[in-house]
Amino acid sequence: MNDQQIRQIMEAVASGAISVSEGIKALGEFPQESVGNFAVIDHQREIRTGFPEVIFGPGKTEEQIVEIFERLHDKNPNVLASRISPEVYEHIRERLPYATYDPTARILYTKEKQELLEGITVVTAGTGDIPVAEEAALTAELMGNRVERIYDVGVSGIHRLFNRLPDLRKAKVIIVVAGMEGALASVVGGLVQCPVIAVPTSVGYGSNFHGLAALLSMLNSCANGVGVVNIDNGYGAACLASKINHLRVQKDLQDD
Amino acid sequence: MNDQQIRQIMEAVASGAISVSEGIKALGEFPQESVGNFAVIDHQREIRTGFPEVIFGPGKTEEQIVEIFERLHDKNPNVLASRISPEVYEHIRERLPYATYDPTARILYTKEKQELLEGITVVTAGTGDIPVAEEAALTAELMGNRVERIYDVGVSGIHRLFNRLPDLRKAKVIIVVAGMEGALASVVGGLVQCPVIAVPTSVGYGSNFHGLAALLSMLNSCANGVGVVNIDNGYGAACLASKINHLRVQKDLQDD
Amino acid sequence: MNDQQIRQIMEAVASGAISVSEGIKALGEFPQESVGNFAVIDHQREIRTGFPEVIFGPGKTEEQIVEIFERLHDKNPNVLASRISPEVYEHIRERLPYATYDPTARILYTKEKQELLEGITVVTAGTGDIPVAEEAALTAELMGNRVERIYDVGVSGIHRLFNRLPDLRKAKVIIVVAGMEGALASVVGGLVQCPVIAVPTSVGYGSNFHGLAALLSMLNSCANGVGVVNIDNGYGAACLASKINHLRVQKDLQDD
Amino acid sequence: MNDQQIRQIMEAVASGAISVSEGIKALGEFPQESVGNFAVIDHQREIRTGFPEVIFGPGKTEEQIVEIFERLHDKNPNVLASRISPEVYEHIRERLPYATYDPTARILYTKEKQELLEGITVVTAGTGDIPVAEEAALTAELMGNRVERIYDVGVSGIHRLFNRLPDLRKAKVIIVVAGMEGALASVVGGLVQCPVIAVPTSVGYGSNFHGLAALLSMLNSCANGVGVVNIDNGYGAACLASKINHLRVQKDLQDD
Amino acid sequence: MNDQQIRQIMEAVASGAISVSEGIKALGEFPQESVGNFAVIDHQREIRTGFPEVIFGPGKTEEQIVEIFERLHDKNPNVLASRISPEVYEHIRERLPYATYDPTARILYTKEKQELLEGITVVTAGTGDIPVAEEAALTAELMGNRVERIYDVGVSGIHRLFNRLPDLRKAKVIIVVAGMEGALASVVGGLVQCPVIAVPTSVGYGSNFHGLAALLSMLNSCANGVGVVNIDNGYGAACLASKINHLRVQKDLQDD
Amino acid sequence: MNDQQIRQIMEAVASGAISVSEGIKALGEFPQESVGNFAVIDHQREIRTGFPEVIFGPGKTEEQIVEIFERLHDKNPNVLASRISPEVYEHIRERLPYATYDPTARILYTKEKQELLEGITVVTAGTGDIPVAEEAALTAELMGNRVERIYDVGVSGIHRLFNRLPDLRKAKVIIVVAGMEGALASVVGGLVQCPVIAVPTSVGYGSNFHGLAALLSMLNSCANGVGVVNIDNGYGAACLASKINHLRVQKDLQDD
Amino acid sequence: MNDQQIRQIMEAVASGAISVSEGIKALGEFPQESVGNFAVIDHQREIRTGFPEVIFGPGKTEEQIVEIFERLHDKNPNVLASRISPEVYEHIRERLPYATYDPTARILYTKEKQELLEGITVVTAGTGDIPVAEEAALTAELMGNRVERIYDVGVSGIHRLFNRLPDLRKAKVIIVVAGMEGALASVVGGLVQCPVIAVPTSVGYGSNFHGLAALLSMLNSCANGVGVVNIDNGYGAACLASKINHLRVQKDLQDD
Amino acid sequence: MNDQQIRQIMEAVASGAISVSEGIKALGEFPQESVGNFAVIDHQREIRTGFPEVIFGPGKTEEQIVEIFERLHDKNPNVLASRISPEVYEHIRERLPYATYDPTARILYTKEKQELLEGITVVTAGTGDIPVAEEAALTAELMGNRVERIYDVGVSGIHRLFNRLPDLRKAKVIIVVAGMEGALASVVGGLVQCPVIAVPTSVGYGSNFHGLAALLSMLNSCANGVGVVNIDNGYGAACLASKINHLRVQKDLQDD
Repeated sequence: MNDQQIRQIMEAVASGAISVSEGIKALGEFPQESVGNFAVIDHQREIRTGFPEVIFGPGKTEEQIVEIFERLHDKNPNVLASRISPEVYEHIRERLPYATYDPTARILYTKEKQELLEGITVVTAGTGDIPVAEEAALTAELMGNRVERIYDVGVSGIHRLFNRLPDLRKAKVIIVVAGMEGALASVVGGLVQCPVIAVPTSVGYGSNFHGLAALLSMLNSCANGVGVVNIDNGYGAACLASKINHLRVQKDLQDD
Repeated sequence: MNDQQIRQIMEAVASGAISVSEGIKALGEFPQESVGNFAVIDHQREIRTGFPEVIFGPGKTEEQIVEIFERLHDKNPNVLASRISPEVYEHIRERLPYATYDPTARILYTKEKQELLEGITVVTAGTGDIPVAEEAALTAELMGNRVERIYDVGVSGIHRLFNRLPDLRKAKVIIVVAGMEGALASVVGGLVQCPVIAVPTSVGYGSNFHGLAALLSMLNSCANGVGVVNIDNGYGAACLASKINHLRVQKDLQDD
Repeated sequence: MNDQQIRQIMEAVASGAISVSEGIKALGEFPQESVGNFAVIDHQREIRTGFPEVIFGPGKTEEQIVEIFERLHDKNPNVLASRISPEVYEHIRERLPYATYDPTARILYTKEKQELLEGITVVTAGTGDIPVAEEAALTAELMGNRVERIYDVGVSGIHRLFNRLPDLRKAKVIIVVAGMEGALASVVGGLVQCPVIAVPTSVGYGSNFHGLAALLSMLNSCANGVGVVNIDNGYGAACLASKINHLRVQKDLQDD
Repeated sequence: MNDQQIRQIMEAVASGAISVSEGIKALGEFPQESVGNFAVIDHQREIRTGFPEVIFGPGKTEEQIVEIFERLHDKNPNVLASRISPEVYEHIRERLPYATYDPTARILYTKEKQELLEGITVVTAGTGDIPVAEEAALTAELMGNRVERIYDVGVSGIHRLFNRLPDLRKAKVIIVVAGMEGALASVVGGLVQCPVIAVPTSVGYGSNFHGLAALLSMLNSCANGVGVVNIDNGYGAACLASKINHLRVQKDLQDD
Repeated sequence: MNDQQIRQIMEAVASGAISVSEGIKALGEFPQESVGNFAVIDHQREIRTGFPEVIFGPGKTEEQIVEIFERLHDKNPNVLASRISPEVYEHIRERLPYATYDPTARILYTKEKQELLEGITVVTAGTGDIPVAEEAALTAELMGNRVERIYDVGVSGIHRLFNRLPDLRKAKVIIVVAGMEGALASVVGGLVQCPVIAVPTSVGYGSNFHGLAALLSMLNSCANGVGVVNIDNGYGAACLASKINHLRVQKDLQDD
Repeated sequence: MNDQQIRQIMEAVASGAISVSEGIKALGEFPQESVGNFAVIDHQREIRTGFPEVIFGPGKTEEQIVEIFERLHDKNPNVLASRISPEVYEHIRERLPYATYDPTARILYTKEKQELLEGITVVTAGTGDIPVAEEAALTAELMGNRVERIYDVGVSGIHRLFNRLPDLRKAKVIIVVAGMEGALASVVGGLVQCPVIAVPTSVGYGSNFHGLAALLSMLNSCANGVGVVNIDNGYGAACLASKINHLRVQKDLQDD
Repeated sequence: MNDQQIRQIMEAVASGAISVSEGIKALGEFPQESVGNFAVIDHQREIRTGFPEVIFGPGKTEEQIVEIFERLHDKNPNVLASRISPEVYEHIRERLPYATYDPTARILYTKEKQELLEGITVVTAGTGDIPVAEEAALTAELMGNRVERIYDVGVSGIHRLFNRLPDLRKAKVIIVVAGMEGALASVVGGLVQCPVIAVPTSVGYGSNFHGLAALLSMLNSCANGVGVVNIDNGYGAACLASKINHLRVQKDLQDD
Repeated sequence: MNDQQIRQIMEAVASGAISVSEGIKALGEFPQESVGNFAVIDHQREIRTGFPEVIFGPGKTEEQIVEIFERLHDKNPNVLASRISPEVYEHIRERLPYATYDPTARILYTKEKQELLEGITVVTAGTGDIPVAEEAALTAELMGNRVERIYDVGVSGIHRLFNRLPDLRKAKVIIVVAGMEGALASVVGGLVQCPVIAVPTSVGYGSNFHGLAALLSMLNSCANGVGVVNIDNGYGAACLASKINHLRVQKDLQDD
């Protein structure tokens, strides 16, 4: 709930337009909607944090995914459900016929035409990192960004990266997706001026410990300007990158 | 080394202005300087990544800190040495009389007057997180940002945070510094539209495991748009925040 | 075995009513019953610790579950078997036709009508935490408590929680069930006067490490009055909450 | 801020007694006080959570400890600063002459005469666990509880514990403080009806890993009704125990 | 190879009965046999360490298990293959018709009648620990020990254990098998004079971390005289217990 | 308390020689003594578990160590305090003039002449492991064993070990003390028939993680008959070894 | 790209044979080829690092494996794809009919006749380590080495190893493959002069933690000259061993 | 003991030149010497593994270091004691006046003039890694190698590394010493043909966990041909590198 809204409610109370009890209720209840007894949709999240609420698939029953999707779709043209496996999609596709499914990114979504803002580049170290990268890229696109993809340019053949240096340097924010030792984040961070969002992936084996090696590597990067998100969290990286990218075109909140 | 410079060197080779051997040498040697046999200063780092090289104090002898500081100061008005303990400062202060020492941030620095760009806010959960927050705040100031500080507003008394919500919402990027369970990053992330840089601190004890609890908490934040840096890494958070903040005022590299 | 019983046995020995050997036997054997060669049922557990013995499903064969269930049911109206998967239930349902199965809570139980004591509220951060919350809620109900459920009010949309603050403040003890970073436990702990039992869940991925992130977060909570149980341990949280809730209505043991 | 207070502020706004702006301000600012630029004291914490704010010593300068102590003491008769080492106490004792220091519990405090509520028992496995136990016991006393101490009754000589069983069974809530393998929590939990708060201590060596062994042991207790707090967190255990103990004598919040 | 044998070979060399080359060969080759190119059977292991070589199933193909079993059976009446799943057994049972399979212990074996030595008792905390306990018990029996079983006497109902104290005190060596927090090992260790072998099991969930909680608990036992083996390693516990039990009846090696 | 004693107390109650209340008291109080309010000495531990209670130094104040030592010495000729640093010894030596201090083993003790039983051998991998080995060796000697020492025979020069093979094979139980990778335990375990007690030490650095590498190595030993104790726990290894060694000379408890 | 090639490109620029733009392009683009949008093949990797690029199977779709294999095969007679499961092979074998599949090593490959260089020996502790050993052995053979195999000679029967000592001492580099405690690496390292590459395997259970025990053991080896690769990384060990083995026959790069 | 020596001893036994008992003794005792009761020097280690025994300082008393140093020096011109702190050196320097101390490498040594073999290059990421690099470099020099040093060329300014590429490519084996995220090992491994020995250092903080981040990074390197040693183990890296470097100049053992 933003300041403006608090002020409006209180002014309504002050003017007698609504009662004190109604004011208390308004302060709490407005921006959400209960779905069954299992979910409380936060319809104001876009206003407050810049994006609509997103459905994280794992741990939800198929029934729950469908119901929340429908409720969100009632009020938003763009709906995004992440980590939807192909098996789950097969079970629910008939009930959400207007939604599109991307099997690489494992995202189920609807989107409206919108103008895209240039500025985000997604880079991967290897081919195996692409599903996470596509989760990031598609999310960023749904959030209104045009995304450049540079895949399979890991440091074991570092000239593949250098070949794309001019492209990297055009970016406003770069998402580096890498498993194994995750060195690509440090190398990219040392070559560019823009912020770098590092996404460790669980690609690897043995002492990789399901992405821990890349995670620690990225957190300890000797390069400056690298922020890290959770292992395999392409979605989270895209959220952060989109917020950064849109800063340039946002008017100050104070200005309206 | 940016593309421009590679092109210039190659054009000089092409024109015969310099020999092939000189060209090879130029490609490699230009942007660095050896100090003793222990350091290679990267004088072009500012051009390439946006900041001059910074001295990380631990693991260096006092002699090495002084020498590198002097070399950097020869070519840059702004020099920053981080993690300089008061004991080390006592030993080297006479040799670097023009430098200023901030004992809370543990930073030794020189700075020129410069115009500061508004947009960065640093928030802490507790009083014990302030040294890390000050490392972040002072670093961001040395990098040309004006910094708002909001300290001791952790979630055990969450109204302290809400009281500062209007200030938080003015920020272009927020650095959240928190130890213990680090929940403040998630709460702030759920309340604002701008990017959040989360810095776990080692404040805590027992199963905190020197900051691991806050680190994992922040990496797993249920809020969107949170990027994490290393435990106690106020410096790194500031680098990232400054890069984000300056995106708004940067002309495109391609445009010149 | 309580003091009263030790005293009675010894008095019987002292009076000659039973022999010394019988006294020794009585001290050891009374409150238990062997089932096959694989289990020793502790029929006095209710007297000693407040609840009858409970069957923890994993690691037991279906045959063992059925046999122990039957023996417990012979002597107790309320029997509870936890972590019973739907597959196991399918295999044993015909042999325990009087028992009820809750597939969300994964509990198989019988219960008698009983008066329920108000006071326990179960809160979840997300929809994915509901199975653990239902294990807690149903267990608490079987132990004689009326349970209020407040689900999907995590900190990424903190106003959803605040909307339920009046409900939270009615509770005598609150069970907070949360995965990911588990910040909800700290936020609730900072807002209420009553004890909080925090249950980390394994909801999450990557550096969540199967619930470790939420566990550490909750153990390091900056809020006071938070006790933590094992990851996904809804049952254990309910035991503790029920003991706390019933303290108010218990007469002192010394008084009878 | 409790519901009552929100209602009063809103009624004042509704009646015109205060302006809308004043109402907004009142909602945010009332219950806190800034100290220097390093702390925001939460003077209403007692109303909201049952205890006044407590000073956690580590990470604070001596100057900060003194200033916060004084501010809290201005408004509360009972002030508690935890984890104050004897060295720190030596430096600040003259500035806080009215405060008492307990070197075993490492607590600096002031307290008013108050009636104490029976019900809390603190048990330790060994002599080395006593400092943590005393932190718990003294904190509970400052919070208005009478505390029974049963020390050095670990399971390597389990009859020492059984000898105290009648005392244990009188308790309304038991705090078990144990290092090494922490088995005492499970054994006590299996013998009593009341809630058990388990505090792992860092007493031990090698694969104890600074309390991790006892922590995991307690979280995995086979006994019911055991809640765990952080390693060495005697203070936190006392907060939780005191809240539980006082439930019996609290009138319902809804009743006034 | 024992000293006696080295001496015999060297005496044969000294007397000219065998050549130097034959002596070298004899020193190295005698006690082993190659099977295919994948195994080298150590036929002298019984002489050297007290038991014949044992087949550890996991990681071996069914073909390899059968071949090694047959080779061992050619020279030993007692053969033991551990960790043989029912699925594997189904595939190989026809090829080893003389072998017996125990599905609880997951052991495939042959054994000769032999006199059994009393002295080993196997204790479990719960019913779920029985498969590991049976691996231990059956192994110990195959190694010539009579085994007493005391199952499901964990510390949550400690009187179940005390009821069996006279039985426990008859043992020469006790194997304690426990999952969850593993407290039973400490409690038993505090009650008996004989050595205790503690076997942590992976029974549990969440912060049990697949047996780590019980393992650390047992390693940090406050009771004396407790030796620990790997998680779920019933076989290893039995080897150690059998060696200890047989010490009483062994003549000194030096004496023959 | 052994069975004999329980029977005697009950017979006394049965015969009227003592009252029921006295019987209850006798069952609980006899075998312990309170020291100050910080310790409860378990004077019957020797009867129950084979050794008198031992003082573990860390976490105890010097005052506490002295008082417990004196109380134990009043009733036992052999007293053992472990982990007593030279600094602590300096402070308390005058108050315990009859005690002997071993600075390598860090043990303070008194002992009576007693006949020693052969059978225990202590082996170390390196010179740095000797303090832990001496803690084991001296403890075993105080418990009535003659101890053979074989030091610095680690596997990097494995012939040093083979040279002592005849000595190793005379042992009834071997304590292997090793840091770094702890491979010596497996190698010794593969060469001897008797039980092996493995003590990992914290000798090493880096990924040794304070003894974790050796601990895991020993727990995963491919050799049979190896039991492990805590890192650096020479004392615990000696307790176990002594119990094993004395089994040969113990009359059956049932026989008297 | 080697120095020679940089020089040639620059000379071409200098001579006007190619333009500056062509020179820049040549510097970057030459040694790689894009496959679809998911891979960038590094065709010069052999020149730069000694081997052609290798396909790591996991994380790639079957389609991607086939396409990259075909592209590599177009330019290299020897192609190697590692970690190809039998299931994947079944799906792709018809599309790559010229390739050979080794089910033990899980490698799909093509190879040309080539002369093999003696010098590499692969040793395993157990039979279960053979798949990793075969991955190493076959990789080394494809890289032009003749490989000696010595399997199942672990330290629990150390004479099996000593029997092969003459064979071990012929090696120029030894790959030791071992799970469980991995002690074999230290023992071999203490017996030979040549470099040892240690490969921990995930063979084991419980506190083995999927190979961590062997990994830490090998990293902490008390023997000199041991280098470690990732858990189960037979391929990586072979790369390193082959590079070492070929050093003897390489002419100096400077010499041509 | 090499094969030659075993053969000689056995021939002496066969010929009657020595008795069987003398033969047994010779097989065991020859290559070692006891020092006090705390060390067994392995004088044949050079013959067997290529280097004389080395003294690892930590865990040894100053007296032990001096005695072992003297004994080794009696038989070897080159003696090396590692991890000798300046404080220890101050205490022992007068007793070993002929030894040289290097305070950066923390090595105390004696060396004879010897011809050095070119081929080893030591590279560091930062200035703080130099002490570990110098331990490696000096060790390698004492083992007969000429060492090239390339320091402070980490990936945050990757052109510093590329500038030295011609030097890197001259090496026969490269030791890469790096802390923080250790990415330098992967980058160097991707650029050169020769074997790379990676040494993680403990330089870093927070989630570096004392070198764990760099260690995992290096073990998971996407580049081929990288072997890893323990954290900060410059000595071990040098041993391995020297063995590799000397392979070229070794005659086959079989040839003499």
